[in-house]
Amino acid sequence: MAVDDFLRPMKPAMKGGSTGPRSVSFDADTNSVCLLDQRLLPHRVVWVRTPDHRATAQAIRDMVVRGAPAIAAAAAYGLAQGIREYGGRDLRRFRAHVRQVHATLLNARPTAVDPTRAMQEVLDAMRRGRTVPERQALALAAAEEFAHRSALECRALGEQGLRLIHDGISLLTHCNAGRLACVDHGTATAPLYLARERGIKFHVFCTETRPRSQGAALTAWELAQAGIPHTIVPDTAVGLLMQQRRVDLVLVGSDRVLGRTGDVTNKIGTYQLAVLARRHGIPFYVAIPLSTLDWHLRSPRQIPIEERDAEEVLCARGAPVVPKGSRIRPEPITVRVANPGSPAWNPAFDITPAELVTGILTPVGLFKPGELWANRHALGYRTGSGTARV
Amino acid sequence: MAVDDFLRPMKPAMKGGSTGPRSVSFDADTNSVCLLDQRLLPHRVVWVRTPDHRATAQAIRDMVVRGAPAIAAAAAYGLAQGIREYGGRDLRRFRAHVRQVHATLLNARPTAVDPTRAMQEVLDAMRRGRTVPERQALALAAAEEFAHRSALECRALGEQGLRLIHDGISLLTHCNAGRLACVDHGTATAPLYLARERGIKFHVFCTETRPRSQGAALTAWELAQAGIPHTIVPDTAVGLLMQQRRVDLVLVGSDRVLGRTGDVTNKIGTYQLAVLARRHGIPFYVAIPLSTLDWHLRSPRQIPIEERDAEEVLCARGAPVVPKGSRIRPEPITVRVANPGSPAWNPAFDITPAELVTGILTPVGLFKPGELWANRHALGYRTGSGTARV
Repeated sequence: MAVDDFLRPMKPAMKGGSTGPRSVSFDADTNSVCLLDQRLLPHRVVWVRTPDHRATAQAIRDMVVRGAPAIAAAAAYGLAQGIREYGGRDLRRFRAHVRQVHATLLNARPTAVDPTRAMQEVLDAMRRGRTVPERQALALAAAEEFAHRSALECRALGEQGLRLIHDGISLLTHCNAGRLACVDHGTATAPLYLARERGIKFHVFCTETRPRSQGAALTAWELAQAGIPHTIVPDTAVGLLMQQRRVDLVLVGSDRVLGRTGDVTNKIGTYQLAVLARRHGIPFYVAIPLSTLDWHLRSPRQIPIEERDAEEVLCARGAPVVPKGSRIRPEPITVRVANPGSPAWNPAFDITPAELVTGILTPVGLFKPGELWANRHALGYRTGSGTARV
Repeated sequence: MAVDDFLRPMKPAMKGGSTGPRSVSFDADTNSVCLLDQRLLPHRVVWVRTPDHRATAQAIRDMVVRGAPAIAAAAAYGLAQGIREYGGRDLRRFRAHVRQVHATLLNARPTAVDPTRAMQEVLDAMRRGRTVPERQALALAAAEEFAHRSALECRALGEQGLRLIHDGISLLTHCNAGRLACVDHGTATAPLYLARERGIKFHVFCTETRPRSQGAALTAWELAQAGIPHTIVPDTAVGLLMQQRRVDLVLVGSDRVLGRTGDVTNKIGTYQLAVLARRHGIPFYVAIPLSTLDWHLRSPRQIPIEERDAEEVLCARGAPVVPKGSRIRPEPITVRVANPGSPAWNPAFDITPAELVTGILTPVGLFKPGELWANRHALGYRTGSGTARV
């Protein structure tokens, strides 16, 4: 079992109303952040705790935890953890310590905006305390509040999305917009977990989602854990699947929805699913927490498309297949699939124009993409460039 | 170097007018069939020869050689090889021997139709001889004739397709419709090799083509060998690639084109490329030898869609990545990418309706899909159920 030096193995605890142990939580007794090590999934289920805030920062950097809401919660907890590591009473020295902890966590994934916001909440709450112990207690309470609110918001998303999940339907999802990427419930998966709880019978097709295969590896793992019937399909088979009328609706997550236009940024491959869904008259829904709404940008052309390392496309990651009955459980490794020396293009996201989107599912309701702006105040509209999530 | 017991390593010889050593050829001196071991590509380039007809049959069965035209040539050569193994003069015993050789090769890939036809040509030619040595010579000449005609047909396809390849264009291809699947030149690749010879500058995007990754592994290997600039794209990135106007045309092969309707069967994922190409106004061409035209079937609904083992979707195959500078060249292995226990759907082909196809490129010209039937006599139309390639 490969757990890095900076992590400690642990057993996770359940929280009430959850679909399982939360992907990110805090243990006040040991002052550590508790995480499911996503680098080993689906081959190994290893829960770990970070003994100090430096270990938490490293876990974020090394992608032990991934997904914007999950990273945000981990950063908030990590900040509280670091704040609680201070043993003295001197406020001036305490403030210097907090600045160092904050900087360490901020540098873990410097381009992510969600952790920055989450840590700001912790800092703002903390400043209401006067003594060091007061501030430490307020910091932890704020981190817990942030994580809990994040989980509740996903739960509300699930409630709103229940109307889409009827007995006997089959739906298609892409990538992983699941519990693993959030504190709990997930975004696109939240209605599925709730429907399963209510005894609704449905089937989920998950695209493999090359190059990182989050659909085959993570979404399938989540659905299997929850006992939801599902089938993995290669990204190449979506057209045939729809041609054979085997999909009733598409439900995906998003990294950014433009509040002014309704255009959707999501994992590479989402756009072509939407084109195919339109050709086959299949409704196409996007599930998001309110923090995913970008009220600032005026055009999808302003969204930069991140290009990642070509190696992800040229390679695949998995556990070597062993003969049936073997007790060996090999570690996942990377293999080169492509012709050595050939270049590859690896855009991480694409943009689905609003005209192809049937509805945007939010914790406060289901909206047509063109209705977002008119409902902006219900949807947490904030002015100013501070709302840009670049 | 992993060459099976039944194969012998060898060095390939070039033939005049070829783009490289033929994927399938015959060495009369050693009475052996010469093959490029496709199971090891792109990680190892290993040429092998089969010492007898049983080894040739096993090479076909084990997919040392793959692709209908290539298998057909290997079977024709294997039959001639087996026929030449007979040392006596007795015609009755010779006939029994030929029947056994024919049956052995026929059983190697029992559902393939191309090898059956190719071997029939060899048998028909052989029967024109009276003595055993005469028949042996005629059999080999017929096998050589078959392979040569197959290569010439692909070359003619290239000549016809040259009109599509202009200086500065970028085209997208899918799977491997290349030299490796044929005796030489390939089908969709034939115009590319010819354009390269003529000094035309163009760029090729090859889809990875999950689950078997023939685009990333085989097409990229072929293009790299020929010095043709190319980029591998994940199957999920095609939509964005077209959205960014980076593709001028799509050119793919086919396993069966219905002569009566113009509908195209090809590797899974082809249909969705055609849907995306249509949305973006990009022409979509299909390159085929005449043997790919099915004049028998009246509707694409009559085409069975082969479903393959789910393991192909759940796993990936490649060579373990070693640190830079390492001299170790690990053997390709299979790794499990997906969640263990999750099921997968693995259809091998899909059907692209004629309405999405701009043109069918053949060795005798470029036709709109609706023009095939009117030009059926030029296109080798044959009546009767014998023309069905099931």
